[in-house]
Amino acid sequence: PDEASRTAALNRQARLTKPTGALGRLEDIAVFMAGWQGSERPEADPVQAVVFAGNHGVTAQGVSAYPPEVTVQMVANFEAGGAAINALTAACGARLSVVALDLDRPTGDITREAAMSAEECLDALNQGAAALGADTRLLLVGEMGIGNTTPAAALCAAVLGGSAQDWVGRGTGIDDLGLSRKAVAVEAAVALHSGAATDAFETLRLLGGREIAAMAGAILAARLARVPVLLDGFIASAAILPLLRDNPRFTDHCIAAHCSAEAGHVLLLDKLGLEPLLHLGLRLGEGTGAALAVPIVRGALATHNRMATFDEAAVTDKA
Amino acid sequence: PDEASRTAALNRQARLTKPTGALGRLEDIAVFMAGWQGSERPEADPVQAVVFAGNHGVTAQGVSAYPPEVTVQMVANFEAGGAAINALTAACGARLSVVALDLDRPTGDITREAAMSAEECLDALNQGAAALGADTRLLLVGEMGIGNTTPAAALCAAVLGGSAQDWVGRGTGIDDLGLSRKAVAVEAAVALHSGAATDAFETLRLLGGREIAAMAGAILAARLARVPVLLDGFIASAAILPLLRDNPRFTDHCIAAHCSAEAGHVLLLDKLGLEPLLHLGLRLGEGTGAALAVPIVRGALATHNRMATFDEAAVTDKA
Repeated sequence: PDEASRTAALNRQARLTKPTGALGRLEDIAVFMAGWQGSERPEADPVQAVVFAGNHGVTAQGVSAYPPEVTVQMVANFEAGGAAINALTAACGARLSVVALDLDRPTGDITREAAMSAEECLDALNQGAAALGADTRLLLVGEMGIGNTTPAAALCAAVLGGSAQDWVGRGTGIDDLGLSRKAVAVEAAVALHSGAATDAFETLRLLGGREIAAMAGAILAARLARVPVLLDGFIASAAILPLLRDNPRFTDHCIAAHCSAEAGHVLLLDKLGLEPLLHLGLRLGEGTGAALAVPIVRGALATHNRMATFDEAAVTDKA
Repeated sequence: PDEASRTAALNRQARLTKPTGALGRLEDIAVFMAGWQGSERPEADPVQAVVFAGNHGVTAQGVSAYPPEVTVQMVANFEAGGAAINALTAACGARLSVVALDLDRPTGDITREAAMSAEECLDALNQGAAALGADTRLLLVGEMGIGNTTPAAALCAAVLGGSAQDWVGRGTGIDDLGLSRKAVAVEAAVALHSGAATDAFETLRLLGGREIAAMAGAILAARLARVPVLLDGFIASAAILPLLRDNPRFTDHCIAAHCSAEAGHVLLLDKLGLEPLLHLGLRLGEGTGAALAVPIVRGALATHNRMATFDEAAVTDKA
């Protein structure tokens, strides 16, 4: 981030007609955006949301409450404008695009084999990176993929340690028996692959999924372009873990939009050192939590850019 | 609230293309709005924000970091469009109006006398009630009044008990010595008046303030008109306490927009049984927290009204 712009934004905050600090996290967000955008008065638009979709061989282990054909059905729903993310991106003024990654070819079942070949994983990363718009100023990354909380939990266990139980949750609403199968699957996958998962690429390739690798690629591309990212839920947060292991400052351009109801997300955000903006009990994915946080960023920039200073408004500042 | 509309909205939520419950509090908000509006598919617009302003004799006790002339200066800032609430209501699509209540006549110093005469208090309540627009579907109530966290804390201590220290906070940023003066002032005011403050009107009259009574009047008028209210911060929450004592269901049409950084607000929301939507460390007042929560309500209604059902989208529901 650009320190001069950060400092200029901080100085501006101190002159606006409010006690310094009285806008809480809005002030932090305005200064954060100023730094990444290299401007004392940053703008959010265009806001871009991308939903990446992938299918998962591990669904064979009975880890999801929904059948895998729902992934392709929901992609059609996104394209027809009928999903939650369509309503929420329309409401917050974000452009939405959907990238479906080889839905007719699920990843390998991670309890038995690698999720992807090197070629497949690289392709997914590249598709993710290519999705970032040239003029995007704020990126939202979401996902759809029946079964994908299982590889996400496996990534957490492999990178951060802990037991499978720490990281598995009910996803779309699996019952107790399914939750046990999920923990067993995560344990088996980590036991099989974690020895070989020694760098970011291999970790994503062995334990991840196409939409997970694509999210990582998009968030990496955003970093290179200095575009801030509103991280969505558990899967988006897990997608950056392999990259974060290689570069502990990889979350610097990310804001955690929300803490989801998926069981592992609280712990994951804590390990990432991220304080989520919203706690609304969401557990849908698609980028819905990120879209709901866009108006908070807009509010931060509206106050930062539009408020009068004490001098301009002839208001007496604190003694 | 209209139970038939609530039930219809609940049934609609169960058919939308998402696991039931996956939108967390958004689902609750949609059903809440449906009940109060008497419609399966409620709308938020017009959203109305009103900022009430008043001055306080208790500032003579050195309880604020800012001098009392800032109240009238900030009203001019609201009218010129330069304050935080102007930026935030513009960003969230709310109509803003400002009602300044006799700023040249501060209330009585509550440590020594009644805040208002019966006539003054009634006038403030009526001005509050009159501010509700005829077509408003969602009301935001905010305030400006140098010194007003002191009467708000006194209302909390008088109605809910506890010590002055439980309820006083730093307001606009008072130092440690000022905070001690504030606790002493609250203790003195409660000792002087709480015996006589036996009903809602007398409590508001003796310990409140003009803008506090006006907020109570506006929120009461909203209840009679079945208009939901987004409660702002500590002062808005304290304003409804006297009415709540007479009718324990008085918060039923209120959503707590946020938990502010003002020390007593966490405890007050807990006593009110309200779970705030946002935790952003705000401590500005003006209705800023309520305005930031409007997009959450809009998101709730956008998903509720616009999403496709499982049947419409031909998506397979959970087995």
